[in-house]
Amino acid sequence: MQERYDIAIIGSGPAGLSAALNAKIRNKKFIIFGNNNLSKKLEIAPKINNYLGFYSISGKELKDIFLDHIKSMKINIKDERINNVYAMGDYFTLMSNGKIYESTTVIIATGIEYTKALDGEEEFLGRGVGYCATCDAPLYRDKVVSIISYNKNGERDANYVGELAKTVYYIPMYKGIYDINDNITIIKDKPIKITGEKKVEKLILKENNLQTEGVFLLKDSVSPKELVPGLKIIDGHVEVKRNMQTNIKGCFAAGDCTGKPYQYIKAAGEGNVAVLSAIKYLDSLK
Amino acid sequence: MQERYDIAIIGSGPAGLSAALNAKIRNKKFIIFGNNNLSKKLEIAPKINNYLGFYSISGKELKDIFLDHIKSMKINIKDERINNVYAMGDYFTLMSNGKIYESTTVIIATGIEYTKALDGEEEFLGRGVGYCATCDAPLYRDKVVSIISYNKNGERDANYVGELAKTVYYIPMYKGIYDINDNITIIKDKPIKITGEKKVEKLILKENNLQTEGVFLLKDSVSPKELVPGLKIIDGHVEVKRNMQTNIKGCFAAGDCTGKPYQYIKAAGEGNVAVLSAIKYLDSLK
Repeated sequence: MQERYDIAIIGSGPAGLSAALNAKIRNKKFIIFGNNNLSKKLEIAPKINNYLGFYSISGKELKDIFLDHIKSMKINIKDERINNVYAMGDYFTLMSNGKIYESTTVIIATGIEYTKALDGEEEFLGRGVGYCATCDAPLYRDKVVSIISYNKNGERDANYVGELAKTVYYIPMYKGIYDINDNITIIKDKPIKITGEKKVEKLILKENNLQTEGVFLLKDSVSPKELVPGLKIIDGHVEVKRNMQTNIKGCFAAGDCTGKPYQYIKAAGEGNVAVLSAIKYLDSLK
Repeated sequence: MQERYDIAIIGSGPAGLSAALNAKIRNKKFIIFGNNNLSKKLEIAPKINNYLGFYSISGKELKDIFLDHIKSMKINIKDERINNVYAMGDYFTLMSNGKIYESTTVIIATGIEYTKALDGEEEFLGRGVGYCATCDAPLYRDKVVSIISYNKNGERDANYVGELAKTVYYIPMYKGIYDINDNITIIKDKPIKITGEKKVEKLILKENNLQTEGVFLLKDSVSPKELVPGLKIIDGHVEVKRNMQTNIKGCFAAGDCTGKPYQYIKAAGEGNVAVLSAIKYLDSLK
């Protein structure tokens, strides 16, 4: 039988970590998904003065302090990206690449996606455009697939899709050494537009035009709207009540994804509230 | 002409301090009222694990860290208690003992009053019961006044009232040496009940019954309801929107006074949001 968590936290920025602290203190069975670098946004912040308790600190220093804190409390971050969360009634199913998790409550703490949507991305979503290459790979057997990846994890996905598809174009949006199988074509170019009639037909780049039947965008985080079908979004942010409850029972949200201001201490405060609300909800089920 | 602040912050717990940090960074003309001991509740906390960034820290240590932070940023706390805030339309008037301040916006960060109301306290409020002895002293010329004080500041008030009233009973709810004028009677006893017909007539203590025409309760903080006439209160907490706006234009609230959970990081996060909302409001007036 599938193991079921009390609380699944998606995201390892200040909101997710703050939630995890309280889940640990309150002795809940929980899991936190993210990565051990915590948050790209945190890491690049030059100087922070308004996180009460730390004067004139860099994002990198604060990141290390946060890491020390969670390590001291024996909290481990599960380095997997959750692609979908489905509300099953009294629990949630979380899909990562090839793995399934179950949890009674979910806390969305995925931050805000700064990557602007590509022209045509939203229009063709589900009609050739997707965010999980490994999930949808079987649909592209013997077809031409383009993978725009914002991080190194995309290489693994590209190699997997390459085993099924006829042709795979890999467009890396990051620098480095690419660990990619020989049958995959790496294209260093800037994506501009996705076009087609009813379905995706072309990916137009600055220097190249690719005939392609599928385009995958592998971003650092999936937008909450794509992540949790049915989640109510207002002006691009997850709608929450003061207790961080979303419109879906058992689903809470915290941090930048719930709206401005995009501030570390606001996110940490909301993570605290969200997890305590989740615990209250769990208690109500007993 | 009365000096007018952009932002007046009432309270020096985590919510008030966090607000002050951002007011300072954003170069606003602001004032923060409270005391240099910050918050009694913070000081007595034995061990805190869930303020992200600090593992296994005592409330006393965290208090000192917060003090260092605001000192580094040259923020000074004004050690005065605000007794009343009046909305004047496009600004607020704040009354402390004998002083008046003006501010375009106000942030209520007064925490939560743990002192249970005395039997009869609410019933006789304005009919002999009050919270500001110095404000109402003239009403008690040649009368008998009882002052129940929860802190040392009450001694100064008692001495002042003693210059006008016929008799002053001072009932200290704290230990220490009392710096009280000789014409004032110190009574060490536990208040139980305030009684009377239409107005206050008696203060009943555990061991004593005092005939008195006025009873002042000098608490560490005034409840928001008493502090700001017209402020909307729900279940004992200030009602706020997600941006910390109260029902009064230009008036924001943050921290424990806005509701549970009573947590430091939640308060600090809300202080940040409240002040940024206040700044947005100030910008909208230009």
